[in-house]
Amino acid sequence: MAVTATDALVVFTPSGRRGRFPVGTPLLQAARSLGVDIDSVCGGRGLCGRCQVVLAEGEFPKHGVTSRAAHLSPSGAVEQQFCRSQPMATGRRLSCSTLLLGDVVVDVPPDSQVHRQVVRKAAEARDIELDPAVRLHYVEVQPPDMHDPSGDLRRLEDALEFEWRLTGLACDVRVLQQLQPALRRGAWKVTVAVHGGSQIIAVWPGFRERVYGIAVDVGSTTIAAHLCDLGSGDVVAAAGTMNPQIRFGEDLMSRVSYVMMHAGGEKEMTDAVRAAINGLVADVTRQAGISPDEILEATFVGNPIMHHLLLGISPVELGGAPFALSTDASLTLWATEIDLAIHRNARIYVLPCIAGHVGADAAGVVLAERPDLSEEVTLLVDVGTNAELVLGNHRRLLACSSPTGPAFEGAQVSCGQRAAPGAIERVRIDRQTLEPRFKVIGCDLWSDEPGFAEAVAATGVTGICGSGIIEVVAEMYLAGAIRHDGSIDGELGARNARIHADGRTFAYRLHNGADGRAPLAITQNDVRAIQLAKAALHAGARLLMERMGVDRVDRIRLAGAFGSHIDVKYAMVLGMIPDCALDHVSSAGNAAGTGARIALLDQRARRTIEQLVRRVEKIETAVEPRFQEFFVEAMAIPHLTAPYARLREAVALPERGTAAGDARRRKRATGRRSA
Amino acid sequence: MAVTATDALVVFTPSGRRGRFPVGTPLLQAARSLGVDIDSVCGGRGLCGRCQVVLAEGEFPKHGVTSRAAHLSPSGAVEQQFCRSQPMATGRRLSCSTLLLGDVVVDVPPDSQVHRQVVRKAAEARDIELDPAVRLHYVEVQPPDMHDPSGDLRRLEDALEFEWRLTGLACDVRVLQQLQPALRRGAWKVTVAVHGGSQIIAVWPGFRERVYGIAVDVGSTTIAAHLCDLGSGDVVAAAGTMNPQIRFGEDLMSRVSYVMMHAGGEKEMTDAVRAAINGLVADVTRQAGISPDEILEATFVGNPIMHHLLLGISPVELGGAPFALSTDASLTLWATEIDLAIHRNARIYVLPCIAGHVGADAAGVVLAERPDLSEEVTLLVDVGTNAELVLGNHRRLLACSSPTGPAFEGAQVSCGQRAAPGAIERVRIDRQTLEPRFKVIGCDLWSDEPGFAEAVAATGVTGICGSGIIEVVAEMYLAGAIRHDGSIDGELGARNARIHADGRTFAYRLHNGADGRAPLAITQNDVRAIQLAKAALHAGARLLMERMGVDRVDRIRLAGAFGSHIDVKYAMVLGMIPDCALDHVSSAGNAAGTGARIALLDQRARRTIEQLVRRVEKIETAVEPRFQEFFVEAMAIPHLTAPYARLREAVALPERGTAAGDARRRKRATGRRSA
Repeated sequence: MAVTATDALVVFTPSGRRGRFPVGTPLLQAARSLGVDIDSVCGGRGLCGRCQVVLAEGEFPKHGVTSRAAHLSPSGAVEQQFCRSQPMATGRRLSCSTLLLGDVVVDVPPDSQVHRQVVRKAAEARDIELDPAVRLHYVEVQPPDMHDPSGDLRRLEDALEFEWRLTGLACDVRVLQQLQPALRRGAWKVTVAVHGGSQIIAVWPGFRERVYGIAVDVGSTTIAAHLCDLGSGDVVAAAGTMNPQIRFGEDLMSRVSYVMMHAGGEKEMTDAVRAAINGLVADVTRQAGISPDEILEATFVGNPIMHHLLLGISPVELGGAPFALSTDASLTLWATEIDLAIHRNARIYVLPCIAGHVGADAAGVVLAERPDLSEEVTLLVDVGTNAELVLGNHRRLLACSSPTGPAFEGAQVSCGQRAAPGAIERVRIDRQTLEPRFKVIGCDLWSDEPGFAEAVAATGVTGICGSGIIEVVAEMYLAGAIRHDGSIDGELGARNARIHADGRTFAYRLHNGADGRAPLAITQNDVRAIQLAKAALHAGARLLMERMGVDRVDRIRLAGAFGSHIDVKYAMVLGMIPDCALDHVSSAGNAAGTGARIALLDQRARRTIEQLVRRVEKIETAVEPRFQEFFVEAMAIPHLTAPYARLREAVALPERGTAAGDARRRKRATGRRSA
Repeated sequence: MAVTATDALVVFTPSGRRGRFPVGTPLLQAARSLGVDIDSVCGGRGLCGRCQVVLAEGEFPKHGVTSRAAHLSPSGAVEQQFCRSQPMATGRRLSCSTLLLGDVVVDVPPDSQVHRQVVRKAAEARDIELDPAVRLHYVEVQPPDMHDPSGDLRRLEDALEFEWRLTGLACDVRVLQQLQPALRRGAWKVTVAVHGGSQIIAVWPGFRERVYGIAVDVGSTTIAAHLCDLGSGDVVAAAGTMNPQIRFGEDLMSRVSYVMMHAGGEKEMTDAVRAAINGLVADVTRQAGISPDEILEATFVGNPIMHHLLLGISPVELGGAPFALSTDASLTLWATEIDLAIHRNARIYVLPCIAGHVGADAAGVVLAERPDLSEEVTLLVDVGTNAELVLGNHRRLLACSSPTGPAFEGAQVSCGQRAAPGAIERVRIDRQTLEPRFKVIGCDLWSDEPGFAEAVAATGVTGICGSGIIEVVAEMYLAGAIRHDGSIDGELGARNARIHADGRTFAYRLHNGADGRAPLAITQNDVRAIQLAKAALHAGARLLMERMGVDRVDRIRLAGAFGSHIDVKYAMVLGMIPDCALDHVSSAGNAAGTGARIALLDQRARRTIEQLVRRVEKIETAVEPRFQEFFVEAMAIPHLTAPYARLREAVALPERGTAAGDARRRKRATGRRSA
């Protein structure tokens, strides 16, 4: 456009884009023609409030502009109307309703940007860029005209093209069934949900501002769901539930066996998991005060067997060699295809599995952690019944699973139990007297503190959970009660009678078993079970490291509930994970679930993970002779020699009294947890 | 490839493509590398027999080749095995199993071509080129390998790419649910159905040769279905049934009223029509001895209200101005979305509607007739409760509907009835005595022939159907009993008492009403009803002609049951249709249904009709003042002046004794018909 005397200069920050426009141009229009990233659902009608900007006051020599409030039109009727329903912060204006009168610098705050960043809380985590597959568009549609007959859908598409530059859209037939009443009830004004910029999936009469998505992590033990506002990226509700498939089998292989041995068993399990997910949908929508109909998209992660059962695919091929997945590609389908009780045109995105034992949950971890973006070699560890391991950096990514078995989850251990109130989760053993003290889930006190007995009276001390087993075995080793080869040193029975004969081997009595309960003891078999599990995990990591040609890793991230709850220094004492600087080993939280949430909020992340998964080199531990060698080598517990100085120091410190530890304990004490 | 001394020349006819290949090359492989159109389902394994060729014997100076049987390998074990199950015609060879040994000319017969022509019976009709959306591909899939883990789907896709050059395929999740068992039951050999070259929609263990499609014409009165073999294009079964929606309203507008007045009425009607279509599916599959699961695609045509109700879209907007369609685009959806009981991944293609009164049935007629391919101006007329009219040539296409009302279907006429046994369908009136003779559906004899009374004793003479009404009014006019303005000439009562007073007007007694039935008479109101209907039809055609700027049409094609059954010369006597040379007016049969069949057999025809429909200029008669003028002008019955010489000659001829007429009558007499 030609610059005239009546043109005014506008500079948008932070982008720095600038241009001259005729006096009277709405700021939103100026921004759009400059390609400035400003959000809008209502298309500039002063309804949604997404396009708020702030006038930068004062002189801006860099831009050659003096910003003055008088250089913008005063607040008009539309803006005042909006403010009455949703007050705006001081200095904020609706860019759609504010006209350019003179030269100005206008700031677009982060929450007004389309591709805003969704901040992740963890320090190590990158932010999520918001770019959901489902977006809302408010349009005014031309009413039908007998002189120019055309279908209502065509006129809707014309409006979407004119107002939102959306072209070549397809439309679900179920939208067509609702289209005509919606247009007429909305007096030709409707809000349309478009998926992937290509498919009309919903239409509502009038203006609608919000649409939701749900990210679901289908674990063998627990299922967790996060309900997100797709406009802001905020998590508006979260819920978790036990996977009801547990009644068909505690671990994955027993569920596969159930399918093999029971006609229709696969459908029973598919129905069960879908019902549980629908329960979570009901739960999170109730929390958020919305209807399940407002959820337009769902994303899923899960291990290969959970993935197959969710989709109604029999997992039997995953139960035996060669562990063939039905598909290792991502899937996009309708919610109705998996009986999900959300909007009936909602779409489902299922992240790709990596290999027969490395599932879409591992893909979610990769997406959350993005080891491919760093030069550092990162090891990602997700421990469940199997440990899924991913190793790599920006050059290569490798993955395998290690058959750790369920010992880390408290199974296969004589006094083991799932993490629940009453379970021992922390243990310290006096290096001299061999006397233990411990903490149980649901109680803030250590067992040697006054009031402990009263505090745990309700639950009792019922067993030992995964993190507790790691600690007790490591502490026994540090106190000398377990030798380098894992055998319990019976001679120490002379020092403390807690070490006692148990058949032909020895055991360590951790708790005397009040209230008529049997004592809790760590037997030689329990130590062996942990040794086998940690050796498998270590061997898997070694195998990946050897394939990659590295002899140490720069960073280790422990994902999942187990990773969140174990104390990494004890994992290192036992040699569960490869050598790594202690402060470079950390929990990644529920990284698989985070990956599902990233895929929900940023559709480009779907292409990213699909490409990454194709790049991953898959290693099958079952057919690698080196795995067996590494496994045997990893059975022993490492000597804490010179390179372990910092670790030695760490485990010698009393944990009691550190603020972070206390905070974590308090949080855990508030309820049942799931590891 | 480099030509060597051991290369042999092969020339394929009719394409004329030629090339040199090493001795020992299979003919099919040579054909493929030359891009010669040879069919195959089994991929060259000697199972399907689709790739048969014929050796052209002798000298071919044009090609510089001497063809000799010795220049091809003798029949081997695979070919002999195939011949035992399906004997081949003499001289035929399986090109996949026949090796090139010397120079040859090889003919690819039409039935071995992928894009063979499907011959349409009618003389005026072009053949259909076969290119179905669903094609079968037999593949051998690599079994899974632990050393190179990949999903079964990926290896299936690899095989489809390697053997059939299909890339970028998507896959229904319901196929994934069946994929692993199918691969294992078929020992890694499966047949895959691919839709549109892009989507895997079915997989079966082992080799499967045939797949079917169904083309459905959903009429307000009747629904007709044709089951086609998608490999050959043959119609293997056909069936028709009454549209059960009739119980909610005889004509279209009464069905729309039913929806308006009854909550859930739309669902009742949608369920009814879907159930009827499923009944037809059961019928045609029973006839063909196949399972409904073998039907992988269905195509649909229907007027806008039938179209909407089939899809579960309320037709209420079509019941009043401005007659807005929900969509005027074609639709591709899953069979399950309209509850169609065929293969559960089968796809549905619904032809596009043209305008609120001009439906997908008219689009089907356009596709069957292709007026856009000719320089001649063609008028297509599809008469139902409304007449849908399309006029045009290769330059322009125009369409409108005319509100003829149901008079042509026998409604609104005192003794009218639907076409069924017992209904008068042919009438002749003696120009002098005014005595009539007639024929009824279900009887070969004229009413003045011996034995007529006995022959119709079973049904009686129950009324007069659409074609009978046209004829009796036209014959009354030709005999002078009706004046140019449509009034019945009461003075002729003196000549024959069949003309008698009927209140303040007159009537003509056609039949005395034996067996206690009331006499059948044509009243002044009946003549007026026909005049109104024919004036509407004529006015619609005039309007299109005026818009197009033509004052006559070169060709008229009458589509639908009505068009098949009326005698065009009587339609011309009444002035129903514009002036046109009598031998250029003909029936197009069930052209709408043929259009559905073309869309089923040739996927490219879908893009053709979608583009044509967009090009059609839609005229809404209700808002065209000229339509009213034309309507009033068309009320009178034309004088058969000089230009009508040939028509005068035609109607003066006795129809009795013409072979074509007799054949048609015999055919119709065999059963109930639907007009």
